[in-house]
Amino acid sequence: MNSDRPSVSERVAQQLAGLLQDGSYDRVKHLLEPLQPVDIAEAIGTLPTAQQALGFRLLSKDLAIEVYEDLEPLVQQALLETLRSNEVLEVVEQMAPDDRVRLFDELPAKVVRRLLQQLSPEERRVTAQLLGYASGTSGRLMTTEFIALKQQQTVAEALNVVRRRARETETVYALYVTDGFSHLTGTLSLRELVTAEPDLLVAEAMTREVVSLTTEVDQEEAARLIQRYDFLALPVVDREGRLVGIITVDDVIDVIEQEATEDLYAAGGIQTTDEDDYFQINLLQVARRRLVWLLVLLLANVGTASVIAAQGAVLSRYVSLAAFIPLLIGTGGNVGAQSSTVVIRGLSTKRIQAIGAWQSVLRESAAGALLGLLLSVIVSLVAWILGYQQQVALAVGGSLLAIATMAATAGSLLPLLFRRLGFDPALMSAPFITTVVDVAGVFVYLQLASTLLLPPT
Amino acid sequence: MNSDRPSVSERVAQQLAGLLQDGSYDRVKHLLEPLQPVDIAEAIGTLPTAQQALGFRLLSKDLAIEVYEDLEPLVQQALLETLRSNEVLEVVEQMAPDDRVRLFDELPAKVVRRLLQQLSPEERRVTAQLLGYASGTSGRLMTTEFIALKQQQTVAEALNVVRRRARETETVYALYVTDGFSHLTGTLSLRELVTAEPDLLVAEAMTREVVSLTTEVDQEEAARLIQRYDFLALPVVDREGRLVGIITVDDVIDVIEQEATEDLYAAGGIQTTDEDDYFQINLLQVARRRLVWLLVLLLANVGTASVIAAQGAVLSRYVSLAAFIPLLIGTGGNVGAQSSTVVIRGLSTKRIQAIGAWQSVLRESAAGALLGLLLSVIVSLVAWILGYQQQVALAVGGSLLAIATMAATAGSLLPLLFRRLGFDPALMSAPFITTVVDVAGVFVYLQLASTLLLPPT
Repeated sequence: MNSDRPSVSERVAQQLAGLLQDGSYDRVKHLLEPLQPVDIAEAIGTLPTAQQALGFRLLSKDLAIEVYEDLEPLVQQALLETLRSNEVLEVVEQMAPDDRVRLFDELPAKVVRRLLQQLSPEERRVTAQLLGYASGTSGRLMTTEFIALKQQQTVAEALNVVRRRARETETVYALYVTDGFSHLTGTLSLRELVTAEPDLLVAEAMTREVVSLTTEVDQEEAARLIQRYDFLALPVVDREGRLVGIITVDDVIDVIEQEATEDLYAAGGIQTTDEDDYFQINLLQVARRRLVWLLVLLLANVGTASVIAAQGAVLSRYVSLAAFIPLLIGTGGNVGAQSSTVVIRGLSTKRIQAIGAWQSVLRESAAGALLGLLLSVIVSLVAWILGYQQQVALAVGGSLLAIATMAATAGSLLPLLFRRLGFDPALMSAPFITTVVDVAGVFVYLQLASTLLLPPT
Repeated sequence: MNSDRPSVSERVAQQLAGLLQDGSYDRVKHLLEPLQPVDIAEAIGTLPTAQQALGFRLLSKDLAIEVYEDLEPLVQQALLETLRSNEVLEVVEQMAPDDRVRLFDELPAKVVRRLLQQLSPEERRVTAQLLGYASGTSGRLMTTEFIALKQQQTVAEALNVVRRRARETETVYALYVTDGFSHLTGTLSLRELVTAEPDLLVAEAMTREVVSLTTEVDQEEAARLIQRYDFLALPVVDREGRLVGIITVDDVIDVIEQEATEDLYAAGGIQTTDEDDYFQINLLQVARRRLVWLLVLLLANVGTASVIAAQGAVLSRYVSLAAFIPLLIGTGGNVGAQSSTVVIRGLSTKRIQAIGAWQSVLRESAAGALLGLLLSVIVSLVAWILGYQQQVALAVGGSLLAIATMAATAGSLLPLLFRRLGFDPALMSAPFITTVVDVAGVFVYLQLASTLLLPPT
């Protein structure tokens, strides 16, 4: 699954540190220039803080900005403090607006205010606009650097616009057409532009059916659209239909990965926030992120303890009943976890919506019952072979069937219910389902055992 | 998280069914032509099988091929059976090679052989080549449709090549330069080509440092590279360095999503295979995919049962001990699940490799001990308040600390160990860790309780 060859940046990092130490600055330039910005960024990130600024200053201006955009947030901040303020300003002024906003999200408010004041009016306007959209929306994700063509331009004129603006915009492959009021009226790919007759009008060459979204739409929706249509970019419009930005495929890949990580962390009972990286936070923050869930589950398990304590009568007479408690709640938890995993992932990838919610719950319940039946036959046999009393074996088998069916139903129903109520379905993920099923499962088991084993009162 | 407005294809599907029923074929064409291929594919997919071929035949030839590529595998197969064999051949012949290979993967071997024989020699050669690479490799994922330029061409000549081949290749934005022996020597983006001086040579305009990979490299590695470098495509070379194909960003998005789903399913204890879609398989297949894990976990839990049965002496004297078993193993399982989730995801996204394996285990163990300490204080207090004996409260608190530390250590160590041994670390995911921790946790708890509560023998 994972290859372990040393990455480009690891190899470079070692050479880089040595060359900087020796003061061989020309050789540093020679080493770095041909590399990809992200590899340079990673190599610089591994240097001691004092050397980072030195290595960074040796980059050509254009490359420096690309490298800066690719640095880890912590290194970006460290550099902001080490570089002279005019150097800082130069970098921040030239950054792509969306990358700049992501940097500002990480910085202390005071630093952001100071930097904002020093930006040129145009860059300040754009940045303030992006910062104005809520985190996690398409407005926040988009860049304001795009090429807008006019309908009455010829294809040849449009190509000239592309040539002129190619260096400064994030993509030249997706082009957008606006009318005199900035309303988005069409779209054109560079592929179409290059192959069209030079004196055709843009209005004739463009596609009028444009898939677009508004600034407040969730960034995950933007990711879904780009993935669905195999687009390289997606236009974002304001409520009046004016083109205000575009979202590019590279940003969307990161959103998809982040979304997957969130789903997975939710399944593992770890709180996530949009902004930061689990592997960069300290131990206390790690503990805090997990403690909430553990406490909720712990208190729910106090419920299980009470259920068991209430059935002291049957337990003290048949101690062997206790031996099967972990098995029953473990299996219930596992079946429930499977169902909730399938449903939560299905909601994220929009597969559930295609089959229908009720259909999915029904399917999971049926699967749970089927699995419960198979497992209860096996367990009853094992218990009987190991020499447990027949009634104990019967109570274990019977309750296992009930628990598996219940677990699968709860595991699929609760996330869907949560979503219907407007909450994040991932909150109803494996750890929570497991605990709910624990309490109910123990209750069913001991109740059934009492009925089978205790004399009627 | 998810918006619920009816999708384009849902709206279209209803109209489409009605129009086909009425025989208004012109209006069908009018309805479908302006839509995105994937929307048309989804709308056709919802039609009854008999109408699917009818709707499909009304598409223009170019559009029909794009739509066919976007159909669900089951619909693709149904159409293969309904369409006349010359119609089938026309579609299959024109499909992009990578999409064709994905279709062939789903079809019965007999059908594939027949179709392969009928393809033109060139398409047959390309398809056989792709089918020769193992599933899940870059060779299998790539397309053989790319534009290769020559070093001695001028920029103007190269642009003419692009114009001529724009319709038939998957991307025109990433261009590759080869020497007389098809060796990859450089790369050039259409952006660079459009902005370069027309009489410059390709050899002068191109970038010589090319990130490429070989056909046998895992497709997830290809996805990581495209994500890391924000590429639109990545060249694939054979062992001799000859350019044989390219991987495009849209295919990579699907790989990233599939990888995330696999991680998540592993965390939920569900087997996955590369090929098929959980939501399309039948109930028996669903049960089979889950049963293996459930059985393994069930048998492991028989171990827990034996541990408990062996401690019958202390349990029969202090029945209240049984009440805390679910709480202890539940918490242990949850802590272990958190650690294994973090480590397995970290391995997939390559974050663990950046901090180092031992460092990660140490971090998780420390977090586990810290969480265990907090929780054991809380639980001991709760137990004491609820009126349990002091020794019971002490046994519960003490074993909780031990269990949490152990669970976090096992949860982080086992996936890393599995990976070192060459297995998939995701096999050591939440359900398995939970069960391992169950057995060990119950043992620690009851052993401690015996020591505290039973008179020395």
